[in-house]
Amino acid sequence: MGPFSCAKEKHLSANSPHTLDVIAIGNAIVDVLARSDDGFLAEHALTKGGMQLIDAEMAETLYAGMGSAVEISGGSAANTLAGLAALGKSCGFIGQVCDDQLGGVFAHDIRAMGVTFTTPAVSGDVPTARCLILVTPDGQRTMNTFLGASQFLPESALDADLIRSAGILYLEGYLWDPEQPRAAMRAAIATARDAGRRVAFTLSDNFVIDRHRADFLDLIDQGLIDILFSNEGEIKSLVQIDDFDKAVATVAAKVPVLVSTRSENGAVAVVDGTRYEAPAASVAQVVDTTGAGDLFAAGFLAAHIDGLGVEDCLKLGAAAAAEIISHYGARPEVDLKLIRAKLFA
Amino acid sequence: MGPFSCAKEKHLSANSPHTLDVIAIGNAIVDVLARSDDGFLAEHALTKGGMQLIDAEMAETLYAGMGSAVEISGGSAANTLAGLAALGKSCGFIGQVCDDQLGGVFAHDIRAMGVTFTTPAVSGDVPTARCLILVTPDGQRTMNTFLGASQFLPESALDADLIRSAGILYLEGYLWDPEQPRAAMRAAIATARDAGRRVAFTLSDNFVIDRHRADFLDLIDQGLIDILFSNEGEIKSLVQIDDFDKAVATVAAKVPVLVSTRSENGAVAVVDGTRYEAPAASVAQVVDTTGAGDLFAAGFLAAHIDGLGVEDCLKLGAAAAAEIISHYGARPEVDLKLIRAKLFA
Repeated sequence: MGPFSCAKEKHLSANSPHTLDVIAIGNAIVDVLARSDDGFLAEHALTKGGMQLIDAEMAETLYAGMGSAVEISGGSAANTLAGLAALGKSCGFIGQVCDDQLGGVFAHDIRAMGVTFTTPAVSGDVPTARCLILVTPDGQRTMNTFLGASQFLPESALDADLIRSAGILYLEGYLWDPEQPRAAMRAAIATARDAGRRVAFTLSDNFVIDRHRADFLDLIDQGLIDILFSNEGEIKSLVQIDDFDKAVATVAAKVPVLVSTRSENGAVAVVDGTRYEAPAASVAQVVDTTGAGDLFAAGFLAAHIDGLGVEDCLKLGAAAAAEIISHYGARPEVDLKLIRAKLFA
Repeated sequence: MGPFSCAKEKHLSANSPHTLDVIAIGNAIVDVLARSDDGFLAEHALTKGGMQLIDAEMAETLYAGMGSAVEISGGSAANTLAGLAALGKSCGFIGQVCDDQLGGVFAHDIRAMGVTFTTPAVSGDVPTARCLILVTPDGQRTMNTFLGASQFLPESALDADLIRSAGILYLEGYLWDPEQPRAAMRAAIATARDAGRRVAFTLSDNFVIDRHRADFLDLIDQGLIDILFSNEGEIKSLVQIDDFDKAVATVAAKVPVLVSTRSENGAVAVVDGTRYEAPAASVAQVVDTTGAGDLFAAGFLAAHIDGLGVEDCLKLGAAAAAEIISHYGARPEVDLKLIRAKLFA
């Protein structure tokens, strides 16, 4: 029964490595989505729209109180890869699952998107990560992440050849927080840069920036980040400048490609010193904002890899984000290639 | 970590029994839904719109070939209970899960709907049942069910007091096929009837009827079925009469309440010898027909329990079915109480 078996899965089948557009390192997470209301958020002191890490006990408490849920593979960088793969890019993923049922679900789903995923699952008592996502009627998502096996991704799990084979190494900021994956990501950066590859990084969330601001600024100062994804709050927090334009200009001076999204106010990119702006794509109804930033990054990167102009990169980013917030879950439901074809018709 | 733990879950928390409107016995299944196309169905010799039982090997093969999926709790009778609970009825469920992650998901979701579920999970190598559902662009679902732990529901798992406490015992025909649950259901019928309760039965699928026609006709002839749910194909198959109206009349002579659905052609009910008809409720777009029959039964039964007229029972059945086919998965997403309020405003 493979990934659905009660028995532990010892050998996840592997795609063979090949030359990739993007290899990403990120949390291997299954999202558990349920409708919620403001009262439930208040009762559990949850900040709407935010992400918090939770321990096993809190995960159990929240889950017990949550409504009937839907399980869909997630993880920020993995969502971005799903978008990139849907747009025809060749991708690989590195992330840690447990050899339990949810680990099998995660592995199945990312491979079903055509993404190479060969990181061996671990056995043991630490289960595959899951994110309990409470979606309020306004479409906002409040994420509660139990990192589980994901936080124990060891440097030894990296496939250096796979990293060297990819044009871009994409790193998820969330995974900078736990110690082992942080060390693995530092090693991956070195491997990629030694091979002449570019490094993309997403800041992920203010809590990560608060804990690792010095690290992030140091990576940027050393010129180790070629492409930086952020949202308005994150870029302001990173340089502790409350003026968005000034914050963007400050960081852009040190990063060849800087992208910052502003929800319904569109997005800004600064590429080699030139600033570009684009409005958000229109959405009939915002159902669930989970994955909006992840899919914006996917659309932008896909167009960027294709050599399109920055305005078009922003447009495809906005279109991919619009698709993802129009339904439940952070994996594309509509053919993104069709969306791209219409956009550039 | 309860239901999401790698470690086995030994004690599922239990609601205390109370007087119920409906107690159901059915498959405890998690649905695994993915978009598919006619080519994939042909490649694996699957009959569109049907349900087939598959073994572990076939489950693994199909899953490996399926696209990225969504996991949502399912099971025919369990879906009906979810609808009944959403309509304010007090319900209990009896079904067998394994103490694995999917078993935890199933238990969480049905309890989150307010349904009493106290059947102890089993440990061991037989995992919780799942149904691999391929949804084609026409909204049709092709179901491939691996029964797993579900087919080993023993008579000893029945809570006789719980059965006696419910006004209606609702039985899922699918579960008549495996031997142990069949014996359990026979015992449950005896318990319910001894307590003066009514028995509802859903025929589920032609394959079950083909294998157990004599049993079903015998139950009906003995007057053990008070309420029978079916669709057009099933009622015709049961009595092997190709004329729908004649088939309905033949069965209705022996069953106080007979309901037969006809997809987009509406539904027919014969109650105490009088025939009623209702059109299907309109749907903007049929996304996924999974659960249409289950939710029709929920709407009909809820209205029937409330003492509404048969036309209104059919109307609420049609409205609940229309809700479920307008989105992915067989559990209600919209507040069915609001739908009922609008219907009878």
